[in-house]
Amino acid sequence: MLPSRLNDPAALLGPAPLEAMRSRRQEWLARAESLKPVLKINERLPVGLVSVVNDPKAFQGCRMEARGAVESVLGKPLKTGDSFILDFGEHLTGRLAFSLVEPGEAADAPLRLALVFAERPCELEKPFDPYPGTLVRSWLQDEVFTLDHPLGFARVPRRCAFRYVKLTVFAVRDGRTAFEKVMVEAQSAVEMDEGAPVPPGLSPVAAAIDLVSRRTLRECMHTVFEDGPKRDRRLWLGDLRLQALANGVSFRRFDLVKRCLYLFAALPLEDGLVSACVYDEPRVRTGNTRIPDYAALFASTVLEYIQESGDRAIAAELWPVAARQAAVLLSLVGDDGLAKVPEKGWWLFFDWNPELDRQAPLHGAILLCLRRTAMLARIAGVPDEDARVYGDAASKMEAAARKDLYDEAKGFFVSGASGQVSVLSQAWMILAGACTPGEGEKLLTRVLRESGALPPVSPYGWHYLMEACALCGGEAAGAGRRIMEDYWGGMLDRGADTFWEVYDPKNEFLSPYGDHRMNSYCHAWSCSPLWFIRGGGFVR
Amino acid sequence: MLPSRLNDPAALLGPAPLEAMRSRRQEWLARAESLKPVLKINERLPVGLVSVVNDPKAFQGCRMEARGAVESVLGKPLKTGDSFILDFGEHLTGRLAFSLVEPGEAADAPLRLALVFAERPCELEKPFDPYPGTLVRSWLQDEVFTLDHPLGFARVPRRCAFRYVKLTVFAVRDGRTAFEKVMVEAQSAVEMDEGAPVPPGLSPVAAAIDLVSRRTLRECMHTVFEDGPKRDRRLWLGDLRLQALANGVSFRRFDLVKRCLYLFAALPLEDGLVSACVYDEPRVRTGNTRIPDYAALFASTVLEYIQESGDRAIAAELWPVAARQAAVLLSLVGDDGLAKVPEKGWWLFFDWNPELDRQAPLHGAILLCLRRTAMLARIAGVPDEDARVYGDAASKMEAAARKDLYDEAKGFFVSGASGQVSVLSQAWMILAGACTPGEGEKLLTRVLRESGALPPVSPYGWHYLMEACALCGGEAAGAGRRIMEDYWGGMLDRGADTFWEVYDPKNEFLSPYGDHRMNSYCHAWSCSPLWFIRGGGFVR
Repeated sequence: MLPSRLNDPAALLGPAPLEAMRSRRQEWLARAESLKPVLKINERLPVGLVSVVNDPKAFQGCRMEARGAVESVLGKPLKTGDSFILDFGEHLTGRLAFSLVEPGEAADAPLRLALVFAERPCELEKPFDPYPGTLVRSWLQDEVFTLDHPLGFARVPRRCAFRYVKLTVFAVRDGRTAFEKVMVEAQSAVEMDEGAPVPPGLSPVAAAIDLVSRRTLRECMHTVFEDGPKRDRRLWLGDLRLQALANGVSFRRFDLVKRCLYLFAALPLEDGLVSACVYDEPRVRTGNTRIPDYAALFASTVLEYIQESGDRAIAAELWPVAARQAAVLLSLVGDDGLAKVPEKGWWLFFDWNPELDRQAPLHGAILLCLRRTAMLARIAGVPDEDARVYGDAASKMEAAARKDLYDEAKGFFVSGASGQVSVLSQAWMILAGACTPGEGEKLLTRVLRESGALPPVSPYGWHYLMEACALCGGEAAGAGRRIMEDYWGGMLDRGADTFWEVYDPKNEFLSPYGDHRMNSYCHAWSCSPLWFIRGGGFVR
Repeated sequence: MLPSRLNDPAALLGPAPLEAMRSRRQEWLARAESLKPVLKINERLPVGLVSVVNDPKAFQGCRMEARGAVESVLGKPLKTGDSFILDFGEHLTGRLAFSLVEPGEAADAPLRLALVFAERPCELEKPFDPYPGTLVRSWLQDEVFTLDHPLGFARVPRRCAFRYVKLTVFAVRDGRTAFEKVMVEAQSAVEMDEGAPVPPGLSPVAAAIDLVSRRTLRECMHTVFEDGPKRDRRLWLGDLRLQALANGVSFRRFDLVKRCLYLFAALPLEDGLVSACVYDEPRVRTGNTRIPDYAALFASTVLEYIQESGDRAIAAELWPVAARQAAVLLSLVGDDGLAKVPEKGWWLFFDWNPELDRQAPLHGAILLCLRRTAMLARIAGVPDEDARVYGDAASKMEAAARKDLYDEAKGFFVSGASGQVSVLSQAWMILAGACTPGEGEKLLTRVLRESGALPPVSPYGWHYLMEACALCGGEAAGAGRRIMEDYWGGMLDRGADTFWEVYDPKNEFLSPYGDHRMNSYCHAWSCSPLWFIRGGGFVR
């Protein structure tokens, strides 16, 4: 019954969803625009002066050392070559601003400042150039700012993400200008004390992780949920799901989640797959990126939004998008019911680990997508006879997984021609329901003891392991709690005041971009412990 | 009768003028504010691409060479390292702006541009650093500009003065961004075709000098008459007088002259001497600079403003300021009726030539000031018995000049202990009426032939020689015309499209600031040929 349909998504669902998506595009964009939040701007003042010191025991070999009160530079006439680092006490996103006074005679020449904005000490340890990285150098946050008339209020135009800012006076009429005040106009869609209160009775480590997760989330919430406020300041569907989960138990700003869902719905790829990312500044447009494991999460994200917000009407509205994701993803599934890794044109993400064989995770992601699509169909009021195709396809993929991807001898789900055993293959199979929670609990506890099993390397990868642990409960839940305390707690031990894009306890300089200073040290996909602590149930 | 008064300015005039100045300060500031012009903004497009080529025959050893049409860079996807120089065809003052498009995929990283704005090719010949000059480095117009979202319209915040802009792509996501349009939002209080029409029948060289003088003046007219739009963008009284003369025969924007007179009146030094310069951005305040030869011109500038505008009411209003200048300057005159060069606390300008002995020029400037003050007193309705003190003091200084500063043997006015014969000593004595125009005609024609006579080095210095020539007429007027054609025409021959702050045909790299690139190549005090051509009477 199913095979021909699995190989022919158009036959499975027909052209209707894609046509509906195209015809509603303008309406969805208008709805997204109407939900654009007004950002909250708070003036934040520096809490002290610091300098970078090299310390082999410190994370990445350097740390900040206190250098006295800010008052020692405020009001003091500037001269060429003056340089100091301000510490704002926590990670902020916004624009640096200052007011200048003339202690005596008029400042008769422009003031030229060299500025470096840093999330972490490593960004201030040495000059950025020569820059060895692979991503565009301009992500690194150094600026040159010239002020024609160095008196009164001034604002640096670029929005930066930082805790520290190094100011160096490149040129000034010596002695004629002084900082009266230096501040950050910090921005976010939310304030820290907004939404749900901190739950009582958290352990100290859980309370610390809760706080830093929440700050990480706040720093990523602007006119969209950004992946990172330093880089790349963009709405990614993979990040959005985790942010939306964390938001549901904290800030509860469902308007922003809904806005982002509309943006993904309105800006798909040509075949209707949602783009893995979209841009909203300076105007909305697609990121045109094809990540199947992100698209597979669209239905989940809509469902979870409905569960938290109660806004059931969106199910029918966005149903064509969800249906289309299932159809396009099923083009990656063969007649045998197994997902095949496509040879080109797709980017299978799942984790930053290049060694990860992605076949089994892909199988799990598509199977999960089908199950969530079937659930969404019911809320959307799709007739059972139209909706059952998703359940049927899921059953076939589940059976294929158990038959062909479970290695009885090894006792694990395996992936690809090499039969790789990875932590993430187990996690995605469990989340997809290819096994029962009870089977999953055993799989997880064993795979975490298995030294040959490939571990995740990114917080995003670790999240899906933890989510599988939370789903299975029991001994797996305990393992999940220990992962959180070790991995996220490890970042805290290393001085994190927001959680990072990349963290490998064994390689402090790991970077997917050839330069650890390019890593985002405030990254959305790292904020999900907030959800586990407040809703996942295995921590409190 | 006069000696005691000459030595005691307070006794001469009493405290009344200074008290009047203090009590009217706020009123004058308010009037200045009410006269602040709305700047005219015009979008100007580049006319071509150029590059700097070294050429020993070119002025300062380099010149621009055409490198094709702007269209060859517009619309072309940018990549890191791209660099080109835009020529806007003439000197402009304003903000660089551009619009960016995405030829294909979204530009996913910030665009970081390195910009250098140049009035002259020398500013683009080599890097500014290491910078050997004495003025603050930040006057040199290089900027680093990062655009978070390189799409759509953007504007570089700094106001620059330039004909050429070098754009270098420091970092960009290669191939994702292209300039659609690059423009200057050029600003001035006036448009080139405003005010009096170009007089008919000018010789080709006079027509060329008229045009370039007018453009120089336009470029210096913003919310005040600036000395130079690149540097130091400030209202100087010495420049103002020449600008006001040129404005009177061209743009005729008397509101701006009046505004500047109020600013000088409202922002004097403690003893009531007008400051040589004042600031108007970001808020008005004094430049606190004591140049007696500038203060001596206050009464002249008010008188000339009244003559051109017909606004006689200002005479009584600003009378206390004019009276106070005379009083303070008379403190530099001894009982013998001779001006003495004060030992410290004053800056005697007259010209950039450090060899110039300034005693005789100072004597001339104060004598001129007294005569103009006496004229202003009549218009201001000052009772004759109060006003005659200026005429009496002038008579005494005139007699002292003829007795002690005219060297019969040399046949020239001489200056200082060395008895220096300089062109400027003759010029200031003639303008002050220490001799008749007929005597002056002979003095000027002879001094210009005299190889031992110290010549001026700056356009400002040359102006006062030309003004003396114009006053004397006859053979001197012809000499004045030749000076204009040689000196200002010489700048034209060397590629000037605005006239310069510094020009010495014998030393192309002359700079008062240790770096010729720091010189202002569009400078107010160079615009006065416009006045000579249209009103001085010796050119047409």
